[in-house]
Amino acid sequence: MGFPFVFLLVLSIQYNAYFISGSDPDPIEDFCISGTKPGYPSCMNTNATVEDFVFTGIKVAGNLTNSGFSSKPVNGNVFPGLNTLGLSMVRADFGVGGVNVPHYHPRATEVAYVLEGSIYSGFVDSQGRIFAKVIEKGEVMVFPRGMLHFQMNVGESDAAILGSFDSQNPGLMRIPSTVFGSDIKEELLQKAFGLSSRDLRKLKNKLSSS
Amino acid sequence: MGFPFVFLLVLSIQYNAYFISGSDPDPIEDFCISGTKPGYPSCMNTNATVEDFVFTGIKVAGNLTNSGFSSKPVNGNVFPGLNTLGLSMVRADFGVGGVNVPHYHPRATEVAYVLEGSIYSGFVDSQGRIFAKVIEKGEVMVFPRGMLHFQMNVGESDAAILGSFDSQNPGLMRIPSTVFGSDIKEELLQKAFGLSSRDLRKLKNKLSSS
Amino acid sequence: MGFPFVFLLVLSIQYNAYFISGSDPDPIEDFCISGTKPGYPSCMNTNATVEDFVFTGIKVAGNLTNSGFSSKPVNGNVFPGLNTLGLSMVRADFGVGGVNVPHYHPRATEVAYVLEGSIYSGFVDSQGRIFAKVIEKGEVMVFPRGMLHFQMNVGESDAAILGSFDSQNPGLMRIPSTVFGSDIKEELLQKAFGLSSRDLRKLKNKLSSS
Amino acid sequence: MGFPFVFLLVLSIQYNAYFISGSDPDPIEDFCISGTKPGYPSCMNTNATVEDFVFTGIKVAGNLTNSGFSSKPVNGNVFPGLNTLGLSMVRADFGVGGVNVPHYHPRATEVAYVLEGSIYSGFVDSQGRIFAKVIEKGEVMVFPRGMLHFQMNVGESDAAILGSFDSQNPGLMRIPSTVFGSDIKEELLQKAFGLSSRDLRKLKNKLSSS
Amino acid sequence: MGFPFVFLLVLSIQYNAYFISGSDPDPIEDFCISGTKPGYPSCMNTNATVEDFVFTGIKVAGNLTNSGFSSKPVNGNVFPGLNTLGLSMVRADFGVGGVNVPHYHPRATEVAYVLEGSIYSGFVDSQGRIFAKVIEKGEVMVFPRGMLHFQMNVGESDAAILGSFDSQNPGLMRIPSTVFGSDIKEELLQKAFGLSSRDLRKLKNKLSSS
Amino acid sequence: MGFPFVFLLVLSIQYNAYFISGSDPDPIEDFCISGTKPGYPSCMNTNATVEDFVFTGIKVAGNLTNSGFSSKPVNGNVFPGLNTLGLSMVRADFGVGGVNVPHYHPRATEVAYVLEGSIYSGFVDSQGRIFAKVIEKGEVMVFPRGMLHFQMNVGESDAAILGSFDSQNPGLMRIPSTVFGSDIKEELLQKAFGLSSRDLRKLKNKLSSS
Repeated sequence: MGFPFVFLLVLSIQYNAYFISGSDPDPIEDFCISGTKPGYPSCMNTNATVEDFVFTGIKVAGNLTNSGFSSKPVNGNVFPGLNTLGLSMVRADFGVGGVNVPHYHPRATEVAYVLEGSIYSGFVDSQGRIFAKVIEKGEVMVFPRGMLHFQMNVGESDAAILGSFDSQNPGLMRIPSTVFGSDIKEELLQKAFGLSSRDLRKLKNKLSSS
Repeated sequence: MGFPFVFLLVLSIQYNAYFISGSDPDPIEDFCISGTKPGYPSCMNTNATVEDFVFTGIKVAGNLTNSGFSSKPVNGNVFPGLNTLGLSMVRADFGVGGVNVPHYHPRATEVAYVLEGSIYSGFVDSQGRIFAKVIEKGEVMVFPRGMLHFQMNVGESDAAILGSFDSQNPGLMRIPSTVFGSDIKEELLQKAFGLSSRDLRKLKNKLSSS
Repeated sequence: MGFPFVFLLVLSIQYNAYFISGSDPDPIEDFCISGTKPGYPSCMNTNATVEDFVFTGIKVAGNLTNSGFSSKPVNGNVFPGLNTLGLSMVRADFGVGGVNVPHYHPRATEVAYVLEGSIYSGFVDSQGRIFAKVIEKGEVMVFPRGMLHFQMNVGESDAAILGSFDSQNPGLMRIPSTVFGSDIKEELLQKAFGLSSRDLRKLKNKLSSS
Repeated sequence: MGFPFVFLLVLSIQYNAYFISGSDPDPIEDFCISGTKPGYPSCMNTNATVEDFVFTGIKVAGNLTNSGFSSKPVNGNVFPGLNTLGLSMVRADFGVGGVNVPHYHPRATEVAYVLEGSIYSGFVDSQGRIFAKVIEKGEVMVFPRGMLHFQMNVGESDAAILGSFDSQNPGLMRIPSTVFGSDIKEELLQKAFGLSSRDLRKLKNKLSSS
Repeated sequence: MGFPFVFLLVLSIQYNAYFISGSDPDPIEDFCISGTKPGYPSCMNTNATVEDFVFTGIKVAGNLTNSGFSSKPVNGNVFPGLNTLGLSMVRADFGVGGVNVPHYHPRATEVAYVLEGSIYSGFVDSQGRIFAKVIEKGEVMVFPRGMLHFQMNVGESDAAILGSFDSQNPGLMRIPSTVFGSDIKEELLQKAFGLSSRDLRKLKNKLSSS
Repeated sequence: MGFPFVFLLVLSIQYNAYFISGSDPDPIEDFCISGTKPGYPSCMNTNATVEDFVFTGIKVAGNLTNSGFSSKPVNGNVFPGLNTLGLSMVRADFGVGGVNVPHYHPRATEVAYVLEGSIYSGFVDSQGRIFAKVIEKGEVMVFPRGMLHFQMNVGESDAAILGSFDSQNPGLMRIPSTVFGSDIKEELLQKAFGLSSRDLRKLKNKLSSS
């Protein structure tokens, strides 16, 4: 009995598939809470409550990795109230000497505010110029959209940063694992970095497990 | 027999919920008639007729409120042909002395054209400067995106305005009811406006019923 | 004495030339009144008055051409207060039988409101489908961004339309003069429209003078 | 058992119809492969393979029409991997004397690269100025967004062009068939182009069959 | 000797005035440090140093006003390195009971992170619904673009918030001073808020001095 | 006599510096030829000729580097007619075994068309998944905005690619020189890539000279 209806639905969705996309700027509703909870359809604005606009997941630091680093994203995937609103955040924690490896965000500028500690922090621009220094608690640094950047806790106690992005989902490309931990043809990497086959293997062994 | 298919579909939609949003600029189809009629799926361009692109709902004024004002929006909600096209309109009618209360549109600039009458019309910018004067039939005034603006019929006969917006859904925030008709904590409002508890009550009583 | 300063200026402007462009959405100031008046530098917001936001140039119709048509644009070129605000307007007047020739706006959707009269009005989409009908006073029609459209006064008295665009400068491409009044190679036009050399000449003679 | 779920789904989709649109800039995912294959839901990124990002359909020219022209679009409709990424292409082939009739793309700038041959190529801007010349193999010409443009193979052998657009679906409006092959009221066209009834018929007969 | 050159320059700038605007998304350079320092021309990227990308002005709270509130913006006006990058910040400090009056940002969403204390925090949407609660240190709340919002320190010690915006210059419209501290016609305000002439005067006296 | 005028101008430009930026989408003029030629002010549309819209600099390959690679950009810097139009190109040539090192474009998607040869070509997404294969003459591959990608000529003769970008200035970040050729603190790089001090030195020596 329900079958004809169901098939119609399938077809209409196929038909519309092409139109479905997403974009950061210029929403056309006040907000659009996306449906990540089971049984919670998308743009369920009618039943919105204040809890949809509050996120409590970064009150405490995450567990540090071996390299003394932890990051907790506050993007549209974990905080559905951000959907269509063009912003997201991240909390990053550093043990002493902890490193946030060279990385970039393909879809956003980042503004980082030091919550605690002393952090060597910088980026490289497309001319190869480096802009880096140690920033302290309460200071702010901007990493322009798509520029490669990095951080290291150079203080003598834990450090933490709050980063903001102008996209609900900035994306994250960590260079070590992206380059040496994926399956890019070895001959290409050897030529690109001037590495012997043995040196490349060493790098890959370390970085594909991370 | 159809069940596995159906469940797959449900899951895929949940999965995709996050991607569904909307944006004003840069459509990727000629148009995209949205599906507000029952049984009319979204982006039903195949069956489009000229009626989808014509709106007849503002040929006559709406009923004036007690304050001598009426507005009829022509946005994507009532005129599905506007969907994705980045524009909408409003017809506003004023009795003698009628007032369009201080308000703003969170997602659009407005250009207002006086169809009839003499209308005191203005806005305040983010420096607190006011730009206001009486405009006459055939004159145009612009209210920049998000600026607080207001109008009053100061002529001796009815007046009307046609407003255009650069969003299919500009939104509308009327200050009196938004501030005093919602449930913002009373202590906060008293401090913000320098009001006694009794004065605030008076304001709230008038404005939450409107 | 002032000379070194002046030369420095020239150089800095050359240097920046590449960065100067313009865009419709997402202004970063409340407004930005552009400097079209002599001695009035650009973005002269400091001295803004309400007159910068009011336009009185379309209170009366323009002079009709031989084809019984007149249009007066209200864009950023004649109304500097619109600069960066993403909207503009046009007033079009039609004598009996007057024609607004097939044309399109390369940078905007248009929403047209009939101020007076009965106007045959329509557009063709990129599939070649036509959407056209007679619209009356108080009715609204939308012409999606970049679609070819046209109008003719089919009533027995004068007619007028107020058009709104979602760009401060929508642009206007009139097909007859653009195609036959410019110097496109004749052989190409003959092949494109299947015209004899003599027929093309006839068309060009009429349309390059217009 | 699955039925209540299915009906809920139908309703939620109706409800959301209004929000579904599409836009070129600023994606919020790395990519979003749209679902044009049967049984392939939209944004099926999980199962993406390299084949989703490679298109092989323009390795050879299409069949030339009578006017010695062929074009093969590489847009989001035929190459689902382009969805949300803001770019598309076209391959155009010309026999000797072949013509790409005056046309425009309502949603994109085009940059054309000559793969082979000598092609008379140009556009007309909104001031009626023409910019045209013969371009050769390896040369590039830009046609700004929405400007009317045209091409003809003026060399003595076949020619080909690769065009790129800054939209996944630029749209295409061919002037001859759009103007004379659609059902625009004849009186309007006669007045617009200064054509007799007989001359218009001749044009329409040739162009509506094309 | 230099004069003809100088006059040419003046004219060309007048001519170009119209093109100068600004926009948040999609920069076309890595960054564009704007020239707010004397003698520092705009987009002076060549001499950029790391100091251009670091801001130290919010390490300590500002002086609290009588209402127990202070805010320090970190936008493109005070931090030139943000220019074109689409993001800015604000540090807000609250004494016990301190109030951030109802306000909105016409050009941005805000994401607020509680640095210290317990803050009653909320917004009203365009349907008049309120979303408000007390948020604690380490929690995040989002205020969608253009929505009216407000905060009050309801804890027993000082409180502070770090806000982020998806615009380099979000703008700020404080409702009490914008509405009652500007020179909107008194009759209009009386009607809009249902105030007697005497009550309005009382409000205006308090709020125009602030 | 001209001096007061000149000083006024200097001040106004300082004042406006903040507003000057640039953005890819939604131009407000047909085009805006930027002024890179000496004595050629910016947006000099009045004197535009067809040569401003044609670029001849990629008719022949550039000189191959030691790694057998050459690239010639066709962006707004070398082709001023592209300014504000949202598109650019690149011609890349490969000797046998030539490598285009892992890199990304911070501001654009790339669509690459193989002009000649057999090219191993791929990208890594933000989940670490690789999408790579050998593409042949006439085939097209898309590299989504900001994704890390790479190419190598795996055929037995020279190869060439024509790339298109949806930005007039996509930017280019080559990983080897950006990471190991800039002055990122060595301790950070050692930790990030698991390199000994000696191994890092080796890498840096090779890559900072390139």
